[in-house]
Amino acid sequence: MSKKIGIVLAGCGVYDGAEVHESVISMLVLQKKGYELVFFAPDVEQAHVINHQEGVPAEGEKRRVLIESARVARTKVNKVSEARVDELDGLFFPGGFGVAKNLCTFAFEGEKMSVNKDVANLITAFHKARKPMTFLCIAPVLPAKVIGNGVELTIGTDPEVGGKIDAMGAKHIRKAVNEAHVDKANRIVTSPAYMSAANLLDVEASVNAAVKAFAELLG
Amino acid sequence: MSKKIGIVLAGCGVYDGAEVHESVISMLVLQKKGYELVFFAPDVEQAHVINHQEGVPAEGEKRRVLIESARVARTKVNKVSEARVDELDGLFFPGGFGVAKNLCTFAFEGEKMSVNKDVANLITAFHKARKPMTFLCIAPVLPAKVIGNGVELTIGTDPEVGGKIDAMGAKHIRKAVNEAHVDKANRIVTSPAYMSAANLLDVEASVNAAVKAFAELLG
Repeated sequence: MSKKIGIVLAGCGVYDGAEVHESVISMLVLQKKGYELVFFAPDVEQAHVINHQEGVPAEGEKRRVLIESARVARTKVNKVSEARVDELDGLFFPGGFGVAKNLCTFAFEGEKMSVNKDVANLITAFHKARKPMTFLCIAPVLPAKVIGNGVELTIGTDPEVGGKIDAMGAKHIRKAVNEAHVDKANRIVTSPAYMSAANLLDVEASVNAAVKAFAELLG
Repeated sequence: MSKKIGIVLAGCGVYDGAEVHESVISMLVLQKKGYELVFFAPDVEQAHVINHQEGVPAEGEKRRVLIESARVARTKVNKVSEARVDELDGLFFPGGFGVAKNLCTFAFEGEKMSVNKDVANLITAFHKARKPMTFLCIAPVLPAKVIGNGVELTIGTDPEVGGKIDAMGAKHIRKAVNEAHVDKANRIVTSPAYMSAANLLDVEASVNAAVKAFAELLG
């Protein structure tokens, strides 16, 4: 039986949702490994809607994270609150500002951020069950807050975000875009993706490195 | 100097815009060939907005094709009306219902469809200049209508859509998902992608076949 991986999405679009390139390339590379993919998102309103052509808030527009995530998944997306640790072999979080705006409040509050309760519960449950998790791009801020305790994470080389990860009780490790960092004790893989990537080739290299390490933990 | 390819998008999301997986995998495979990518979309309102979680129209919602396309492109998208044939080496059209709803009216009117004037002018200009064009998935309905005249196109094996392509004066050729059809006389490449694909691996195989043939025409 193929292993079942839960992909947690944060909407659709780099500035207010899941980063689309990271999400799709992750799905492709995970399918190449033969994994079955199941999608999750919190059923909440987006922090805001950004006009991606102009880079400014679309005043008055409202969108829901779960519904927009289905544009990326191209299939049904389940509520994060319904994810069961015993039905999944691992979790995978692509990045994008949606992670820092809809799954937690890092974009607005930095290291003082809070994490969506269902997302926090899911990460805690996987950590306790010692099931592997991968976090791309800015998504490592989630385990930094939820797990803390010196968990080793990379978001690439950005000193400001790295410092905030340290401030939350985790340990930031500098890595190149085509590298993944593996915290074997906590069974967590991280890789910079668009925190450092200049193009889709870099994103693919980052995802390849992350999925290779993730597959080793999945066994 | 690297060749410059215009990618024409139709929004963001399979049911009312550009198909996201086809678009991103096309961008990745074209970047692997070393091409510079430039993005275009018509600056018009979407035919409608589909809630991708439920598959039903989102009543009262309005979105613009150009603005939503920027979520897929992750960079500025230019108006199709501003595309210049002498500044581009080739054109590439991913699929998705947005092609059949926003770039033309195939989804609503079948072979009696009309094509967005700027999109039609661009295809005509490239055809006259003998610059290569690629159309994935449902996008071959565009050259079927604009060029007609027995131009050879594939959308895979669907007899209903194939019949409508024939009815517009083109010639439908049956192909497997991992194959591309090349009309050498008209310098047009087509490949089925999600008209036949079961997953992202099939989409990648379809895009790989299309880009290989496209690169041969680009020289």
